Amino acid sequence: MKIVYFDDMSQDDLDTKYLNRGDTANNEIDAIVDQILKEVKRRGDAALQEYTLKFDGVTLSNIRVSQEEVEEAFSKVEPEFVAILKEAKENIWYYHEKQKQNSWFRNPSENIILGQMVTPLERIGIYVPGGKAAYPSTVLMNAIPALVAGVDSIAMVSPPNKEGKLNPYVLVAANLCGVREIYKVGGAQSIGALAFGTKTIPPVDKIVGPGNSYVAMAKKKVYGSVDIDMIAGPSEICILADNKGNATFIAADLLSQAEHDEDAGVILVTTSQELAEKVQEEVKRQAALLIRKEIIQKSLKNHGYIFVVPDLEIGFRLVNKIAPEHLELMVDSPFDALSKIKNAGAIFLGAYSPEPLGDYFAGPNHTLPTGGTARFSSPLGVDDFIKKSSIIYYNRSALDQARDQIIYFAEKEGLTAHANAIRVRDKG
Amino acid sequence: MKIVYFDDMSQDDLDTKYLNRGDTANNEIDAIVDQILKEVKRRGDAALQEYTLKFDGVTLSNIRVSQEEVEEAFSKVEPEFVAILKEAKENIWYYHEKQKQNSWFRNPSENIILGQMVTPLERIGIYVPGGKAAYPSTVLMNAIPALVAGVDSIAMVSPPNKEGKLNPYVLVAANLCGVREIYKVGGAQSIGALAFGTKTIPPVDKIVGPGNSYVAMAKKKVYGSVDIDMIAGPSEICILADNKGNATFIAADLLSQAEHDEDAGVILVTTSQELAEKVQEEVKRQAALLIRKEIIQKSLKNHGYIFVVPDLEIGFRLVNKIAPEHLELMVDSPFDALSKIKNAGAIFLGAYSPEPLGDYFAGPNHTLPTGGTARFSSPLGVDDFIKKSSIIYYNRSALDQARDQIIYFAEKEGLTAHANAIRVRDKG
Repeated sequence: MKIVYFDDMSQDDLDTKYLNRGDTANNEIDAIVDQILKEVKRRGDAALQEYTLKFDGVTLSNIRVSQEEVEEAFSKVEPEFVAILKEAKENIWYYHEKQKQNSWFRNPSENIILGQMVTPLERIGIYVPGGKAAYPSTVLMNAIPALVAGVDSIAMVSPPNKEGKLNPYVLVAANLCGVREIYKVGGAQSIGALAFGTKTIPPVDKIVGPGNSYVAMAKKKVYGSVDIDMIAGPSEICILADNKGNATFIAADLLSQAEHDEDAGVILVTTSQELAEKVQEEVKRQAALLIRKEIIQKSLKNHGYIFVVPDLEIGFRLVNKIAPEHLELMVDSPFDALSKIKNAGAIFLGAYSPEPLGDYFAGPNHTLPTGGTARFSSPLGVDDFIKKSSIIYYNRSALDQARDQIIYFAEKEGLTAHANAIRVRDKG
Repeated sequence: MKIVYFDDMSQDDLDTKYLNRGDTANNEIDAIVDQILKEVKRRGDAALQEYTLKFDGVTLSNIRVSQEEVEEAFSKVEPEFVAILKEAKENIWYYHEKQKQNSWFRNPSENIILGQMVTPLERIGIYVPGGKAAYPSTVLMNAIPALVAGVDSIAMVSPPNKEGKLNPYVLVAANLCGVREIYKVGGAQSIGALAFGTKTIPPVDKIVGPGNSYVAMAKKKVYGSVDIDMIAGPSEICILADNKGNATFIAADLLSQAEHDEDAGVILVTTSQELAEKVQEEVKRQAALLIRKEIIQKSLKNHGYIFVVPDLEIGFRLVNKIAPEHLELMVDSPFDALSKIKNAGAIFLGAYSPEPLGDYFAGPNHTLPTGGTARFSSPLGVDDFIKKSSIIYYNRSALDQARDQIIYFAEKEGLTAHANAIRVRDKG
C-alpha cells in the first residue's frame, strides 16, 4: 500500500488520481445484453432455454426448483450451518423491522385530511450469483427486507451448474426465508425474464441482488419498466484511525475487503505516521498467509492507499469526500466522531466491530452504496420494497375556502382548465 | 373519449393497446445531449455561454442572478400572488414536515448498538423550465422537501429569455423559499454544469425538477455520478367513479389533465354505463370552452378512455394495473375504497378534492410517478433529500460471542480473509 500525505483538501483529483472511480462503459457487453433482452422479450421461455444451454452448459426441461431439490439441499448442508443461518436471519430481521414506516394522516383543519399511505411492492425478483462460491448471505440480505416490508410474492433466480443444480446453501437460505418460487436461470436472460415475464416466470415490479457485468448491464437496461436496486461497483473499505489504532486489526480488515475483487478499494486514513508504517508492514505480512493472496495483492497495488492527514478534522473531511461503502472508525471516541460523518454506507465503531461482522451476522444490510454514491444513496433496506401514495381529502367547505387561491395560481401558470375544475364545483 | 367495456382482467395488452406507455428512445436527442455534456465537462463556463447564446439567443457576462434582479422581480409580481405563494409554501411545508425521518439505535444486548443514521444530502440542484408559462409551483414543490430534509446548499437553474432575464414569478417563489443561488442557464448544458461543476457553479449531489426531453435525457446520462429524481413522463389522471359520480366534476377534472400535454393520459373507470355516456358528452361540451382546447382534443383523441367495468372490484384491479399518477376516488365511500388501492402516486378522495388542488396548494407534492411507475415509486418528498448510514458497534465480549458463527459463515462463502479479520481479534 502506498503512503500519501494528504493535507490539501482543495485538491479535486481525489477521484481521478487515487480512487479510480467512474464509468466502465463496455460496448461489447452492451450489445450482447441488448440482444439477450430482445430475444427473451420476444420468445420467452424458449430463449431462456437456449441461453442456459449456451452459458451454463445444461438443458433443463423444468427450470423451477422442486420440493425434492430443496430437500436434497438440506441433506447436504451441515446442521450447524443451518443453525447459524437461522441466527443470522433473526439478527437481520430484528434490524430491518425497525425500518418499517407507517402510513399517516394529518388534519390541518376539521375539513381536511392529508396523508401518506405506505404499501409494499406486490412482487419482486432476487438475483443470486452462481459460480463456485456459495452466497447464502445474499439470499438473507435481499429477501428479509422485502419480507419485512410485506412483499407478498418473491421470485428468486440463480444460474444452474453443469448438472442443472443450484448451490445447496443458497437453496437452504431461501427456504429458511420462506422463498418458495426459485428458478434455475441466470445472467442477463434471467433479468429479462423477471422484467418482461415469460410463460413460466411472471414479471416483477423490482429486481434486486448482485451479479456480474452482464447482469448489471441488463438491470440498467430494464430500469424504468421495473425498478432495480443500486448497480454495485467494486467493494470498498475506508478506515479512519488515530495513533491508538491497532495495526494488526486494521491490516486484517483492509485485507478482508481486498480479497473480494482485484478492483476493491482499500483505504486507511490516519493522523499517525507511525501507524501508517506499521499497517503497511502488517498488511504485507498477513497478505502472504491468505488463500486469496493473488487477488489481494492486485487490489492493494492498484487501489490501496494510506492517507496520512495532519489532524482528525481533515480526516473527517477526506472520509466524507471519499464517501466509502464501509467505514471503520478506529479512533479514541468513535461515538463522538459519528456526528462528523456525512457520507458512508455502513459505519463500524471501535476496535471490535470489524467489517465482516456486517457482511453476515450483525443485522444491517450488506448491500451498500459504492463508488462515492453514499453521498446520495442508502443501504438496501425496507424502504426499497415499499412505495408511498399521497392522500388528499377536502370537503366542500374546505375547497370553498381555498377556491380563490387555487384559481389565481392556476391562471398565473396559464392552466385555465385547472381553474375550471375548481369553478365547476361552485355550482355543485 | 372512447368508451371501452372492460371485464377481462386477464388481458395483458392494457399498456400496448390503450395506455401507449413505453420507450420513447430518440437517437438524435441522445447524440446532441452527449455532445453538450462532453463540452460542459471539458470547457465549463465557456461552453455554458456558447449554448446559452445558441439555444436561448442571449449572451450573459454573469449568469448568477443578482439581488437587484430579485428586487425587480418582486416589483413585477402582484402582492396578492405573493400572499398566495406564502400560503401555499406553508401548506407544503406542513405536509412535508411529517415526512421527516429520525436516526435510531437499538440495543439487542448491552454489548451491542445497532442503528441507522439519517443525514441530509449536502448540496442539490433544482431545474425550473423556462418558456412562456411561469412555474412558481415547481420551485415550491422541489425546494421545500429539500429544505425540510435539512439540505444546506441549493442551486437553482432556469433558462433566460432573450433579454437575459428569468421569469419574475419563479424568482419570487425561489426567494420566498430562501433559495439564493440562482443561475440563468437551462437545457442539457445546465444539467452538465450541476453534475460536473464549472468555475461558476459548484457540482451538486442530486438534480431534481422537470424539463423538456433534452433535460430529461441529460439527467438520465449524468445519473450515477449524481442522483436524480424520477424522469417524468406525460401527466396522467384516472378517475374511479360509481353511479353517484358527478359528470360535470369528472369531465372538468379529466380536462384539467388533458390541457397539460397532447400526450397526457386521461382515464375514467366507472361501473355506470349511464355516467360513462354523460361524461363523454360533458367532456365535449366543456372542452369547447377552454383556451387550450387544441391540446386537450389531441390528448383526448389519443389517450382518452372511459372503461366501463362490471363492478367496483374489477375497477380496483384495473386501477392498480394502470398505477396512475393521479387517482380520484369518486365513489360512495372513498375512505373505504382506499384500502383497495395499491398503486397510485396521489389519491384524491371524494367530489371536492379535484386534482388541481394537489398541484399547488393542499401540500402534498405534485412531482409524482408516471407511466405505471407508481408500482414501485413514490411522490417526490423529504426521502429524496436524505440518505441513511448503518451503524454497528460490538464490544469485545459481543464479538467473542459471535466469533464462531461469523468465521463459519465467511469460510462457507470462501472468504478466508474475512474469517482472519475476526481471528486476529482473539489475541487483541
